[in-house]
Amino acid sequence: MQLQCPMPQLDFEVITLGHGSGGLLTNRLLDAGVFSLFHNDQLDQRHDGALLSFPGPVAFSTDSFVVSPVFFPGGNIGDLAVHGTVNDLAMCGARPQYMSLSFILEEGLSMQEFWDILVSIKFASEQAGVQIVTGDTKVVERGKGDKIFINTTGIGPIHPRAAIAMDRVAVGDKVIVSGELANHGIAIMSVREGLTFETDIVSDTRPLHQLVQTLLDTFGGAIHLLRDPTRGGVATVLSEVARDSGNGISLQQGALPVADGVAGACELLGLDPLYVANEGIFLAIVAPEEAEAIVATLRGIPGGEAAAIIGEIVAEHPRQVVMRSQIGGRRVVNMLAGEQLPRIC
Amino acid sequence: MQLQCPMPQLDFEVITLGHGSGGLLTNRLLDAGVFSLFHNDQLDQRHDGALLSFPGPVAFSTDSFVVSPVFFPGGNIGDLAVHGTVNDLAMCGARPQYMSLSFILEEGLSMQEFWDILVSIKFASEQAGVQIVTGDTKVVERGKGDKIFINTTGIGPIHPRAAIAMDRVAVGDKVIVSGELANHGIAIMSVREGLTFETDIVSDTRPLHQLVQTLLDTFGGAIHLLRDPTRGGVATVLSEVARDSGNGISLQQGALPVADGVAGACELLGLDPLYVANEGIFLAIVAPEEAEAIVATLRGIPGGEAAAIIGEIVAEHPRQVVMRSQIGGRRVVNMLAGEQLPRIC
Repeated sequence: MQLQCPMPQLDFEVITLGHGSGGLLTNRLLDAGVFSLFHNDQLDQRHDGALLSFPGPVAFSTDSFVVSPVFFPGGNIGDLAVHGTVNDLAMCGARPQYMSLSFILEEGLSMQEFWDILVSIKFASEQAGVQIVTGDTKVVERGKGDKIFINTTGIGPIHPRAAIAMDRVAVGDKVIVSGELANHGIAIMSVREGLTFETDIVSDTRPLHQLVQTLLDTFGGAIHLLRDPTRGGVATVLSEVARDSGNGISLQQGALPVADGVAGACELLGLDPLYVANEGIFLAIVAPEEAEAIVATLRGIPGGEAAAIIGEIVAEHPRQVVMRSQIGGRRVVNMLAGEQLPRIC
Repeated sequence: MQLQCPMPQLDFEVITLGHGSGGLLTNRLLDAGVFSLFHNDQLDQRHDGALLSFPGPVAFSTDSFVVSPVFFPGGNIGDLAVHGTVNDLAMCGARPQYMSLSFILEEGLSMQEFWDILVSIKFASEQAGVQIVTGDTKVVERGKGDKIFINTTGIGPIHPRAAIAMDRVAVGDKVIVSGELANHGIAIMSVREGLTFETDIVSDTRPLHQLVQTLLDTFGGAIHLLRDPTRGGVATVLSEVARDSGNGISLQQGALPVADGVAGACELLGLDPLYVANEGIFLAIVAPEEAEAIVATLRGIPGGEAAAIIGEIVAEHPRQVVMRSQIGGRRVVNMLAGEQLPRIC
């Protein structure tokens, strides 16, 4: 479901340098686009910043988005930019409350494309319950940017039962993934390379705060660490956890949820799904006695249907991730070296 | 004075796409650059976000910086990015406390240039007393960006005596500017056009929170509105104030502080200093009975030496800014139309 928001009549069809001047054209662009779509008490002040209050502790996170192409199967840079920061907050155990929104537009971007992105941002922010309260718009010359880059920075209250920290990762903990691997990266790759597969592969871009909220409501301190495996994929994030916690991680290859179409595409493209970027799943390191119940809970929530236990924290091979194959083989899993799919988010 | 921070020995001299992969190279870049320079309790967690607490109300502001050239007389994109957000917070009556830092790097950027920018960010953030607590780094292909774009998003507590709001602007209020007009825009322009002037013109990029803090400590509620006239200059910001407050604004041309060299350069380049961007001054709309004392206070603080009353809020010509010349002429001052100096910040 997508919001229907027809673009207003405007006297320009493309973004020009003047729209970044801070003057009349910037005001017209903001009136037509941003203020009409996102208006709220804070934005309507048109001040340099928003005035906020937080009774308790909050999480604060930023991300810049440069994904190419800007529109891809399952989403676009607009909803991706909202989900990205919503999810970084969720990984801190926080609910998204306020967000800033900053654009770097390339001269010549069509206003229709910009509008479609703005509408996606509106829909995604409403779905996530986050208010856009302050922002910025710059324009660079043709050839000095690439259509649109977006920064979102979010802030929101931390769940009262959250106790998420690297030093809570302990030997025996289970490693859970909330859904299928590699959908986002393969969806982007398929558009870039003009590939079509037998099944439609779409990005998994989605907000994760509801899933996390439910886990924290139900299991509280049994959730020791949360991470979303975006750039660098599951392999890189788990390598960082092994390095930073000082523990080993043992993965079961057969337990990794990968859709058949995605597995086939990965094979065709020579990619390991463990290194491909995701935008709608997370990894949870949890107390072993609650692991089965956590997976069962996730499976009952939209977006968590494919949740699975994929490994555990071990005392062996400290600071290393080791994958065990179905026939008993073992291989060390390292961080992504070099670059597999540039500008994936 | 600038910090001396020699660049560590690295096995790469330029930024490559791999530095934005999220994997091994990203980790190496962050270890060498960001984490070693900026380390603090929050950053050292290496989580997706920072955990913060605010006992009282805060201001929240974002800006993306795309200035070209990246290095200019008086500063570079790094300190500009810190000052820009520090100043937006100051305009809300807030002290900068925490900041996020997000880079979009172009493949091929030299590591030495990136390092010099990082060092400037470190120095500017320490000078402003703001902690960088979370960040992001992306890399785009050569020709899809322009060396480096930076987003900073800041948050900090509002001064207990601040009562800054558009609806406090009242007829009779005085309009004060804290320093000379047009220095930043002309400094950038001179590098771009390869111009040299008799006197060195340097950007006024500086943090304004100290000046604002002192005004609020001393004059509290007599400060009705604060704005920094960056893109679009003093003319555009005052036009917005006239539009949004519903009042008229009368300016005295002879009262505008403009350095002789800058005035000469403006004449040479056909620019009106009223429309040229500034990065180190602010406009204050203040209670008339305190205006002289406020100017005297500003003049006693570094960065405020050229402060002056330049006009007042009037009941005549509502929603319009009118400039009165020294010989009694009058002209309407409108917002900047079109674009004068693209990518000034």
